[in-house]
Amino acid sequence: MKFQPPKGTRDLLPEDASKLQKIMEICRSVFTKYGFEPLITPAFESFELLSAKGGLGEAVKDEIYYFKDKSDRELGLRFDLTMPLARVVSSTSLPKPFKRYVIDKVWRYDNPQSMRWREFWQADIDVVGSGSLLSDVECLSAICEILDKLGFTDYKIRTNSRKLLQNEFEKIVAKEKILDVFRIIDKLEKIGFDGVGDELKNKGVDPTDVLNILKIGSLDKISDNDGKKELGELFSIAKKFGIEKRLKFDISLVRGLEYYTSVVFEVSLGANVSCGGGGRYDALIEKVGGQSMPATGISLGLDRILEVMKENNMFKTEKTATKVFVANVDENALNDAIKITKTLRENDINSQMDLMGRNFGKQLEYANSLQIPYVLIVGPTEVKKKKFELKDMKTGKQRELSLNQIISIFSKL
Amino acid sequence: MKFQPPKGTRDLLPEDASKLQKIMEICRSVFTKYGFEPLITPAFESFELLSAKGGLGEAVKDEIYYFKDKSDRELGLRFDLTMPLARVVSSTSLPKPFKRYVIDKVWRYDNPQSMRWREFWQADIDVVGSGSLLSDVECLSAICEILDKLGFTDYKIRTNSRKLLQNEFEKIVAKEKILDVFRIIDKLEKIGFDGVGDELKNKGVDPTDVLNILKIGSLDKISDNDGKKELGELFSIAKKFGIEKRLKFDISLVRGLEYYTSVVFEVSLGANVSCGGGGRYDALIEKVGGQSMPATGISLGLDRILEVMKENNMFKTEKTATKVFVANVDENALNDAIKITKTLRENDINSQMDLMGRNFGKQLEYANSLQIPYVLIVGPTEVKKKKFELKDMKTGKQRELSLNQIISIFSKL
Repeated sequence: MKFQPPKGTRDLLPEDASKLQKIMEICRSVFTKYGFEPLITPAFESFELLSAKGGLGEAVKDEIYYFKDKSDRELGLRFDLTMPLARVVSSTSLPKPFKRYVIDKVWRYDNPQSMRWREFWQADIDVVGSGSLLSDVECLSAICEILDKLGFTDYKIRTNSRKLLQNEFEKIVAKEKILDVFRIIDKLEKIGFDGVGDELKNKGVDPTDVLNILKIGSLDKISDNDGKKELGELFSIAKKFGIEKRLKFDISLVRGLEYYTSVVFEVSLGANVSCGGGGRYDALIEKVGGQSMPATGISLGLDRILEVMKENNMFKTEKTATKVFVANVDENALNDAIKITKTLRENDINSQMDLMGRNFGKQLEYANSLQIPYVLIVGPTEVKKKKFELKDMKTGKQRELSLNQIISIFSKL
Repeated sequence: MKFQPPKGTRDLLPEDASKLQKIMEICRSVFTKYGFEPLITPAFESFELLSAKGGLGEAVKDEIYYFKDKSDRELGLRFDLTMPLARVVSSTSLPKPFKRYVIDKVWRYDNPQSMRWREFWQADIDVVGSGSLLSDVECLSAICEILDKLGFTDYKIRTNSRKLLQNEFEKIVAKEKILDVFRIIDKLEKIGFDGVGDELKNKGVDPTDVLNILKIGSLDKISDNDGKKELGELFSIAKKFGIEKRLKFDISLVRGLEYYTSVVFEVSLGANVSCGGGGRYDALIEKVGGQSMPATGISLGLDRILEVMKENNMFKTEKTATKVFVANVDENALNDAIKITKTLRENDINSQMDLMGRNFGKQLEYANSLQIPYVLIVGPTEVKKKKFELKDMKTGKQRELSLNQIISIFSKL
C-alpha cells in the first residue's frame, strides 16, 4: 500500500519547497529590516488558551485539531500565531514595544478546497505594547515591501475599522443582532449582495439599510466617529510611508477572528485572492491573563502567495541550487572526482558528484534531470593535464579550464 | 491566570530564536552546497504510516502524540523526519539519488528532562536510492562541516555497523534474545557496564561474553564479516573526504530506531552530549509500500546544539539585528524621523523608530534595552543643517554626519 499525506495537508517537493523558501527568505529579511525579532512557540497549545475569551471561545473546538495527551491534558494545534504571542507576552516582561515576527505553520480543521488547506504557512508580524497607529502602518509597510519584492504589482489592502462598523450598524440593527450581521457581511465576497440580503432576511434583519451602508465607497460619506477618525489618521500616516495607494477603505471588511478591536486589514492579490490580513487587538492580551496592552499585527498566507506566483510564472529561480555536477568518466577517475568536489565545496560552490557508480552517460542524464547548469568532466587525461572540460548543459558548449579558473567562474556567478 | 507552553515544550524568545536561526542558516547553506534539496511534509502523518513495520511498529503509540481527527482518522505528530521521507519517496518518482534536507520540528512523548523535550528541532539530510557508502560519507562530511562552522572543535561521530553487531552477537546470544540484548546495550552510556551486566542477567543472558565484546576498541580485533568490511570501506572513503579523524569505531553503538540495517552513527559534542545520529536503512522504503531502495541519512538535534553553544558562549551574534534606532528629540521631529527611517530601510539598513510617543530619554533607554548599537538623533536643528548626530551606544561617542555618510557607514558594516 502507498501512504498519502493526511487529508487537507500536502507535501512540497523540492521545486516548490525551494520556492516557498525564497518567499520566506524575503519575508525574514524585510521583517528584520523593520526591527521585528523572531519568536518560536510550540505547534500546540493548551486548549484553555486556544478557547480563551477574546480568542475564539469554546466553539474553536470545531475548527481546530483538538486532542488530549497521555495525561489527559487538553491540547490543540494552534490555529494562528497571535494567540501564542499573546500567551508569551502575558507571561514575560520583554521591553515594549515588542516587535516580533514568526514564519511557521498553523492548522485549521476547515473543509479543504482550492487554495484552502488544513495545514498552512503564515508569516506574521506584530507590535505589542504600542497603541499608536504608526505601529499598524509599520506592519502594513513591511507587508507592502514584501509583496513588491516578490513582484506583485496589483495587490490591495482593504482597510476598515471595527469601531466604525460598530458605530454605523448600531444605528440600524438591534445590538444583540450585530454579531450575526457581521458574520453575514463577512461572506459578502463569497455570496454577493443578494446572498447577504437573503441571509439577513432569514435572521429577521431588514437588508435595505445594511446593504446601503455596505455600498458606501468613501470614508468622506461617513459621519464623524472614533472609527472614522482612526482610519483618517491611519491613511495620513500611510501617506508618509508612501503606501497610501495600496490601502483601500472597504466598509464591508469584517475579518472573522473576534479579537480585533479597531483597524482591520485584508491583503488581496490581483484577482481578489486574499493572502492575509490582520488588525488591532487591544483587548486580547489582558483577556489571556496579561496586563492591559494594545497590540496590532498582520499575517501573510504563504501557501496562497506561492500558488499565485507559480500560476503567474513569477519565479525566476533555477530548479536546483546545485551549480555543477562533477562527472567521472570511469571508476578510476572517482577519487579525483571526490577531490575536485571537495575543493569546489571548500570554495562554497554548490556541487554534486555521482553516488550511484553510474557510467558517464547516465551521470549526464542525472545532471540533466535535475537541471544542474554545468557538468565538470573528470578523466585520467584531464587529471594529468590539470585541465577539465566544463560543459554548459543548456548550450552544450564545452570549455577546457583549470580548476582555479572554474572556481573563479562560479564564485562570480 | 497565566498560560504556560504545554509540558515538555518551550518558547524560544527572540535572543534564543535568533541563535537557533543562525544554526539553521548554516545547516541550510551547507546542505545546499552538498546538493541536498528541501522537502516539506506535514507535521502529522497517518498513524498507519508511523506504526508501519520497519518503523517503530504499534508500540509507537506510547511514544508519540496520537490523536484522531473529526472523521476518526488515526493520526500522529511525526516522531522523526525519516518516515515522512520514506512515504514521499515510496509514492513519487523523483530522480535518484534523491538528496533531501529538511529542518523542522518533531514530537516525541518522552519524559521531559534536561536537554530532552517533547517538541524539538531536527536538521536532517538523506540520500535515497544510492547503496554506495559514498552517500553515507557525503552526509557525514556535511555534518562535520556544519559543526566546524558552528565552532565545535571536539566533536566525535561514533560509528558502528548493525551487520557487525548482529554477526558478533549471534555467536554468543540466542537469536530470539538478540533484540533484547541490543536494547540493553543501547543504555550503556546511561547505566554503565555494571548496569548493562545486571540487566543482561535479568534477561537470562550471561553478561561475560557480551561485556567482552563491548570492550573491543578496535575494528582490527573483529574477525572478518560483512559488517567489518563495510566499516572498513566507510573509513577509507571518509579519509578521502578528510573527516576520518572525526569517526570513532564504537561496537556498543546500537541506535534506538529499528529501521537501521547497516552502518549507524551518533554525533557527540564535547562532554558526551549526543546531538544527532543516523545510519543506513535499506529496507524501510519497501516496507512502507515503495520499491526496494537503499537509503541513508543523518539527523542533527538543533535544540541541544543551541544549548551547548549557549553554555560555552559560542555565539558571536549581537542581541538584535537592528543596527540603528532613529530617535526624535520631540514630537515635531517625528515626521522627519519617519522619513529618515524610511530612507535607511530603502538602503537595506535594519532600523527602528519610536512607536510609543516617548520622550527622547525614554527612546534611548529602549534602544539600550534592546542593545541596538547606534542611535541616530533627529531634531529641528539637525534637519535644518542636514547633519545628524550618530551615537555609538557602546562608547557613548557621537559624530555629526550627513544622511548619506550614515548610509555609507552602515552599508559597509
